[in-house]
Amino acid sequence: MASTLTVPRWKTTISNALVEHEKSVVLQLASIDPTTPIPHVRSHIFRAFIAPVTHPSLPLLITTTDIRTPKSSQIISNPHVQIAWWIEGTQEQFRISGLASAIPAPTNSLYKHFLHNVRNAKPTSAVAAFSREDFNWEAKRLEVFKSMSVHMKASWCRPVPGTRLEGGEEEAKKWPVRVEEPGEDADEETRRNWETALGNFALLIVDPTEVDYVELGVVPNRRTRFWKTTDGVWEEEAVVP
Amino acid sequence: MASTLTVPRWKTTISNALVEHEKSVVLQLASIDPTTPIPHVRSHIFRAFIAPVTHPSLPLLITTTDIRTPKSSQIISNPHVQIAWWIEGTQEQFRISGLASAIPAPTNSLYKHFLHNVRNAKPTSAVAAFSREDFNWEAKRLEVFKSMSVHMKASWCRPVPGTRLEGGEEEAKKWPVRVEEPGEDADEETRRNWETALGNFALLIVDPTEVDYVELGVVPNRRTRFWKTTDGVWEEEAVVP
Repeated sequence: MASTLTVPRWKTTISNALVEHEKSVVLQLASIDPTTPIPHVRSHIFRAFIAPVTHPSLPLLITTTDIRTPKSSQIISNPHVQIAWWIEGTQEQFRISGLASAIPAPTNSLYKHFLHNVRNAKPTSAVAAFSREDFNWEAKRLEVFKSMSVHMKASWCRPVPGTRLEGGEEEAKKWPVRVEEPGEDADEETRRNWETALGNFALLIVDPTEVDYVELGVVPNRRTRFWKTTDGVWEEEAVVP
Repeated sequence: MASTLTVPRWKTTISNALVEHEKSVVLQLASIDPTTPIPHVRSHIFRAFIAPVTHPSLPLLITTTDIRTPKSSQIISNPHVQIAWWIEGTQEQFRISGLASAIPAPTNSLYKHFLHNVRNAKPTSAVAAFSREDFNWEAKRLEVFKSMSVHMKASWCRPVPGTRLEGGEEEAKKWPVRVEEPGEDADEETRRNWETALGNFALLIVDPTEVDYVELGVVPNRRTRFWKTTDGVWEEEAVVP
């Protein structure tokens, strides 16, 4: 019998697949800009699952973004997202529907939208359960940021992503290539780059509500639909692949 | 100077990447169901580019589907789609926005929506250019169907995808595993399975209008936006990655 202490089977399945296929961390995240009829989708790197201590049944997905990107404003306007995650090595596809939040620095003006999402989260959501545990999201943001490569950190020091490249390739060559954590004797530029990158860096969390799991590596193929009930536990049924 | 005879650079780039990385044919296609605020995205296999003889500037992407899936009705309601295509081997991402059509058998009741799309297509679209050339879509559908593996063909003989699996795994074991083209002396079941699979099989074409191309394999990273002008030629500009 599923309870709030049961880790959902879809999550265990993904985690097991990643043990064998550790490079399969690229997933595609779709969002809607409510002002246009065009869906948006782009690749993201999956960083981790985290679940509230009291609710292992409610794992969240963590990925990251630059808070200045269009997708940040898209998910603020409409938090409904869907992830397509194809794991080549196991021939499995996970389609994860859920509610997304961008979590920038608390000093960022967009942080208020995350607080709004927390206040309005359903009691059975992971975001609400984390809130009841006084989870420190800023500490998590800093931890994830520090775990990034120096090259990845440098990507958050560029001009606003998607805007016209003023000055062309010559200008782009001036962008920092590495951003290191400043030590006590760090120079001004090192400190400034770290602050800039950390200021633009945001966690992007997805709180799943439904998962469609297709297994193409077995005969006959299998497909399972998982959904979170109003009690906050996961149920599943077999569907036609 | 770009003309209607110029193959767009983004298309050449994808084709070149696929020569080196022939397994990188899995892409993710996002669509919107206008009745809900939830975006939809799933993996597809890229099958081919085709362009009108008179307009090499207008390549279409071909993938396939089961005409009975929810995505078929989604793109009939809202033909705007976006593709995310990550090519691991070259560290390139292509995000292709465009208009999609599902092309089932001409005898299928949903075929009329494809005819509607053709009639309403902009003169600068690939679909309109193909129409002016009297392109035989049914011949193309049959050609692509025949190129599928016997196992893939069998997947179009199942009950409606996504519906509850009545009878469970025992029932699923009765589904055909191989569907072969019936020869002259073929039995009734072989003929019936071929007709069923071909009847559910549809081309899914995407007529691109904009492409966002990110190159993460070069330092500094590069990003290019391509768009089709009202003259039906492709232009591009460098943007911030």
